[in-house]
Amino acid sequence: MSNSFGRLFKLTTFGESHGSLIGGVIDGFPAGFNLNLDEIQDKLNLRRPGSSNLTSERKENDIVEFHSGLIENITIGSPIAFIIKNNDKKSNDYKNLKDLFRPSHADYTYQKKYGIRDPYGGGRSSARETACRVVAGSLASQYLTQKGISVYSYVSSIGKIELNKDYNDIDLSNTYKNRVFCPDKLIALKMENLIKEIKEKGDTVGGCVNTVIKGILPGFGEPIYNKLNAAISFAMMSINATKGIEFGSGFESSKMKGSNHNDIFIKKNNKIKTKTNNSGGIQGGISNGEDIFFRVAFKPVSSIKKQQQTVNNKNEEVSFLNQGRHDPCVVSRAVPIVESMTSIVLMDMYLLNLTSK
Amino acid sequence: MSNSFGRLFKLTTFGESHGSLIGGVIDGFPAGFNLNLDEIQDKLNLRRPGSSNLTSERKENDIVEFHSGLIENITIGSPIAFIIKNNDKKSNDYKNLKDLFRPSHADYTYQKKYGIRDPYGGGRSSARETACRVVAGSLASQYLTQKGISVYSYVSSIGKIELNKDYNDIDLSNTYKNRVFCPDKLIALKMENLIKEIKEKGDTVGGCVNTVIKGILPGFGEPIYNKLNAAISFAMMSINATKGIEFGSGFESSKMKGSNHNDIFIKKNNKIKTKTNNSGGIQGGISNGEDIFFRVAFKPVSSIKKQQQTVNNKNEEVSFLNQGRHDPCVVSRAVPIVESMTSIVLMDMYLLNLTSK
Amino acid sequence: MSNSFGRLFKLTTFGESHGSLIGGVIDGFPAGFNLNLDEIQDKLNLRRPGSSNLTSERKENDIVEFHSGLIENITIGSPIAFIIKNNDKKSNDYKNLKDLFRPSHADYTYQKKYGIRDPYGGGRSSARETACRVVAGSLASQYLTQKGISVYSYVSSIGKIELNKDYNDIDLSNTYKNRVFCPDKLIALKMENLIKEIKEKGDTVGGCVNTVIKGILPGFGEPIYNKLNAAISFAMMSINATKGIEFGSGFESSKMKGSNHNDIFIKKNNKIKTKTNNSGGIQGGISNGEDIFFRVAFKPVSSIKKQQQTVNNKNEEVSFLNQGRHDPCVVSRAVPIVESMTSIVLMDMYLLNLTSK
Amino acid sequence: MSNSFGRLFKLTTFGESHGSLIGGVIDGFPAGFNLNLDEIQDKLNLRRPGSSNLTSERKENDIVEFHSGLIENITIGSPIAFIIKNNDKKSNDYKNLKDLFRPSHADYTYQKKYGIRDPYGGGRSSARETACRVVAGSLASQYLTQKGISVYSYVSSIGKIELNKDYNDIDLSNTYKNRVFCPDKLIALKMENLIKEIKEKGDTVGGCVNTVIKGILPGFGEPIYNKLNAAISFAMMSINATKGIEFGSGFESSKMKGSNHNDIFIKKNNKIKTKTNNSGGIQGGISNGEDIFFRVAFKPVSSIKKQQQTVNNKNEEVSFLNQGRHDPCVVSRAVPIVESMTSIVLMDMYLLNLTSK
Repeated sequence: MSNSFGRLFKLTTFGESHGSLIGGVIDGFPAGFNLNLDEIQDKLNLRRPGSSNLTSERKENDIVEFHSGLIENITIGSPIAFIIKNNDKKSNDYKNLKDLFRPSHADYTYQKKYGIRDPYGGGRSSARETACRVVAGSLASQYLTQKGISVYSYVSSIGKIELNKDYNDIDLSNTYKNRVFCPDKLIALKMENLIKEIKEKGDTVGGCVNTVIKGILPGFGEPIYNKLNAAISFAMMSINATKGIEFGSGFESSKMKGSNHNDIFIKKNNKIKTKTNNSGGIQGGISNGEDIFFRVAFKPVSSIKKQQQTVNNKNEEVSFLNQGRHDPCVVSRAVPIVESMTSIVLMDMYLLNLTSK
Repeated sequence: MSNSFGRLFKLTTFGESHGSLIGGVIDGFPAGFNLNLDEIQDKLNLRRPGSSNLTSERKENDIVEFHSGLIENITIGSPIAFIIKNNDKKSNDYKNLKDLFRPSHADYTYQKKYGIRDPYGGGRSSARETACRVVAGSLASQYLTQKGISVYSYVSSIGKIELNKDYNDIDLSNTYKNRVFCPDKLIALKMENLIKEIKEKGDTVGGCVNTVIKGILPGFGEPIYNKLNAAISFAMMSINATKGIEFGSGFESSKMKGSNHNDIFIKKNNKIKTKTNNSGGIQGGISNGEDIFFRVAFKPVSSIKKQQQTVNNKNEEVSFLNQGRHDPCVVSRAVPIVESMTSIVLMDMYLLNLTSK
Repeated sequence: MSNSFGRLFKLTTFGESHGSLIGGVIDGFPAGFNLNLDEIQDKLNLRRPGSSNLTSERKENDIVEFHSGLIENITIGSPIAFIIKNNDKKSNDYKNLKDLFRPSHADYTYQKKYGIRDPYGGGRSSARETACRVVAGSLASQYLTQKGISVYSYVSSIGKIELNKDYNDIDLSNTYKNRVFCPDKLIALKMENLIKEIKEKGDTVGGCVNTVIKGILPGFGEPIYNKLNAAISFAMMSINATKGIEFGSGFESSKMKGSNHNDIFIKKNNKIKTKTNNSGGIQGGISNGEDIFFRVAFKPVSSIKKQQQTVNNKNEEVSFLNQGRHDPCVVSRAVPIVESMTSIVLMDMYLLNLTSK
Repeated sequence: MSNSFGRLFKLTTFGESHGSLIGGVIDGFPAGFNLNLDEIQDKLNLRRPGSSNLTSERKENDIVEFHSGLIENITIGSPIAFIIKNNDKKSNDYKNLKDLFRPSHADYTYQKKYGIRDPYGGGRSSARETACRVVAGSLASQYLTQKGISVYSYVSSIGKIELNKDYNDIDLSNTYKNRVFCPDKLIALKMENLIKEIKEKGDTVGGCVNTVIKGILPGFGEPIYNKLNAAISFAMMSINATKGIEFGSGFESSKMKGSNHNDIFIKKNNKIKTKTNNSGGIQGGISNGEDIFFRVAFKPVSSIKKQQQTVNNKNEEVSFLNQGRHDPCVVSRAVPIVESMTSIVLMDMYLLNLTSK
């Protein structure tokens, strides 16, 4: 298992979905920083299930408690450890599932890898673990904000409903103003309706999350093997249910010619800028000072309320119906998670870059 | 800088594009293994520029010399160090470029990060470094072959010419039989013609590389933060010119419903298999025993033989013409690189997995 | 800060001396292992202060609670997280100390490094953190026992009272039968009397801990930079109050000639053994199958009940009297800590060695 | 194998004693630094064998060639790779040794660990590897010098001849003025005579190397598990033939009382200093601004020119005479190696500390 992320700014998490608690240890946060603890809890609330009828009915208060590394709200250089208690662990829901391998879940792969698995709600493989990432990401985000860096993630598609606008034409401050976390009110409404419809059918649907990083100076990212885009990809693909990532012009670039794709350098207000941003703000694995832009694809949640076929522990083909409470669509809840993992990567790169020259 | 890749099977590389040599150190290769050194050179030859009129005219013999870690061809547990001399370093080609920032290259970002940069051919940021990855990947591949694992990469698109076939309907052994490294002869011919056309115009074009891993057992991949798909993404996005990656159903999955997307478990010859493979062989970050499938997008090469505008070291807007020898399309040459980085990740995961239970 | 130890078997700890709790996360413990949780608590009790009038009067129940990584007592591959609550945090004792730098403590260095420090009982720099090492070490020890490996640490000197016997002439099973943790009953009694005498005077005294590892096969240890002796030294010198370490013939070897020092290989019961063991069981950084032997020196505790001079936060020379409860001698309590850190290193080396050939 | 050392300033080495070359890759050296390449070669010459009749007769020019990471002599952020060719590889000397396990060498342990070994001169386990450490250490030393930090190592004993003076009473600039590298001329002469005597008898002798670090500010060292003393111990014990290390009052401290051992803080020229330095400049694993002082013990070299008994590959007891050229005493040659490893640790700590607050 690899339960730690990062090099200088390092997060280690622990806890299973239906155990007593989950938590994390943050190592490497600089000392003497005034944290806004309420803001961390607010960010965590955005990820929380049960906050609307669009998401899982699992009720979790998700209260973060800090137990190390702070004097009041000031960091002291010690590891910052936190705990989130699991209040609502209806493990009974999983009784009829514990002997079978749920399709497209990690039940089978954990069983094969470890020879044993936690049969309640996926145990460690559950997306519940991502709450810890939001806590750490929120800390990183507060630090980055002081350096002028902002991370904006938002839902850009749910199923086939897409927000087909350049992010420059969107007011990114609107994202958290609706329950879908899509900054376009009208599209958000369509998405919401789609999710309700899907939910009624006991089905689930996927979607995409876009991310824009603003205010980043040139120089973030460590070539050759810890390029900024590589590190962000590593972070994103470690989030549950992600299936792909693309930067700037992305897959579309594979169809383009160099003469169209190149981002010409120009002078603007006596600064060096690029005319276009097909690079998505990264060249040679290092930020070039333009906005960083990437897009992450999420598959539809695997837990559906429909009769499904599978195989059980005894190697028998069986059919089953999952009665657990699950999200018809996790894409919205993924928004703060994507933001958080992005912030964690950026903070690590910020610290690494302090030693480059 | 981060010039090392991997945890237990670790590659460290060095050398600039137009210096005296490049090379690498492989740490963690198990002792007592009989390497086929000719096969390593053969693999390296596939990546070599100047091998056909489709690629760069830079002539590099690219002969790998091993200087540590072997008794004859047997590994002894010591680090395996190798060198590839740079025979053909026409740095003169770069004289008129050394004071300006080539568009979509890493000149500007390196200058800003380090306050200094190698002005000849991109220095360390050049794709020349990837020759070292092919050497290490070829060693890993020989080890994996003994464990029954095979990695097949191939060109699936060049510009808008796509190979629209399921990999199961393709004879993957044909890939290296043509100069485009696309296993479909007819499509390969179309691609070749496109590349020639692009080359004549002094332009460049992008494309995609698909990869299939066969023979992998369930259990490869380390949750939570070193998932197999995350580690592969990290590896791929560290390759020059990559813009995106997707696994299995990829971005398309974001438009699907769970009831269609889930990979139902079935029994086949008394083994547990999945009916479909939207997961691309990975569930919860761990291989499930199905073929692993992913797709990587490459942008068009930034070096074009056309007049371009940019800014120079003195902060002046200038226009320039790049006379250096460059590839109209690197996608074919990327095939052995993608295969190699995949093998490096898999070997690391193989070793890590030895300690999981 | 570097709050993680180990490569494949990794311990991360958190918590300050007078906070709400301390704890740790163990990553990399193989799945499917039956732990004896009572035995872990027993080991922890050996380190606990307040267990006799020889040690600190601080009363800590030191009850370890596991919150992740186990199904009942079986490891499942998830991170094993545990918490030890701080029941008896008389931070008031530190009120008069919080503005001054206690001599030979870490108050001053933490203040200079971080610009801020926890003024209660040393915060993170307190030896309280070592309780977490004992938990992790005890887990490792149970694993090693199944592989036939045993670690025996014992007090070999307190002040000038030394146990001058070869460990082969000592019954190592007696160590924990007295309160000093010295396996020789008579010497232990002398040590106990010395400690009482020192305590009455409000003073403290140092001592040495010897360690013998039995049952280890040849091959543990990773050259060049993770030699077994280097890794053990790194572990030991990370324990509070350690001042030196020596292996086998140790410092004495510096006075010897090669012809006397060399450990001649001989055959014994058809096995290759060495006639002498000046090497302390390690040659070239790798275990040779003989017993591993090393000795660690501990300085006298810095907290004494005597008036002392120092400088305070305001840069003023002041004198003070420490009223906190402290140990006259920590050497005995260090015994389970030394054993634990040794076990952690060995388990890491065991796992690393699984991939060497 | 673990052929890399360091976290932010990282050295990876390669090459066997009697192969074509040895070399190293330095990652993490800040860009834009003017190196004095001659000074590096000079330092390397101090370690070189064959430089006097006190050392091995092996003649090695030991010329370091840089092949990456520099523009002329300026660092550019790329990995700094270097090579030292093995000119004088009389592998014939080892013909009669290649099937037997030399006493107290690593032949047997490598064979058991890897199932195969380089039979010529110890292969990778040879101290020849340390030449690479001197190159890296010399680079680090130049960087540290600019920050006001100096490392002074010197021979403090050879066999029973000891330099019994406080380092404050020694002119440390004299160390390299004689062939023994002991800064006291008279003691050096006695040592030289002892070594000659030992050499005539075909025997070898051990000794100790002391190290003083001057000019270091408070704050170097990363608690909990990468304490400055722990990291230095790890570095020292990775050097061939080391048997022990102690800091400040060292093993002697174990006999002392706290009231005598504590280093009282005082004000001196308005700075906070300590009255004594039993701590050896480190408290709680962090430098306190006083001189750092430690002592390392080296055993006598294992290769002696006397008939010795051992066991061979075929499990037979045999006797043999080593005809290879070896040092009667390596302690002097260890001085630049100890200095170098110290500098490498300090530079890593310097870079790590940049991110602490």
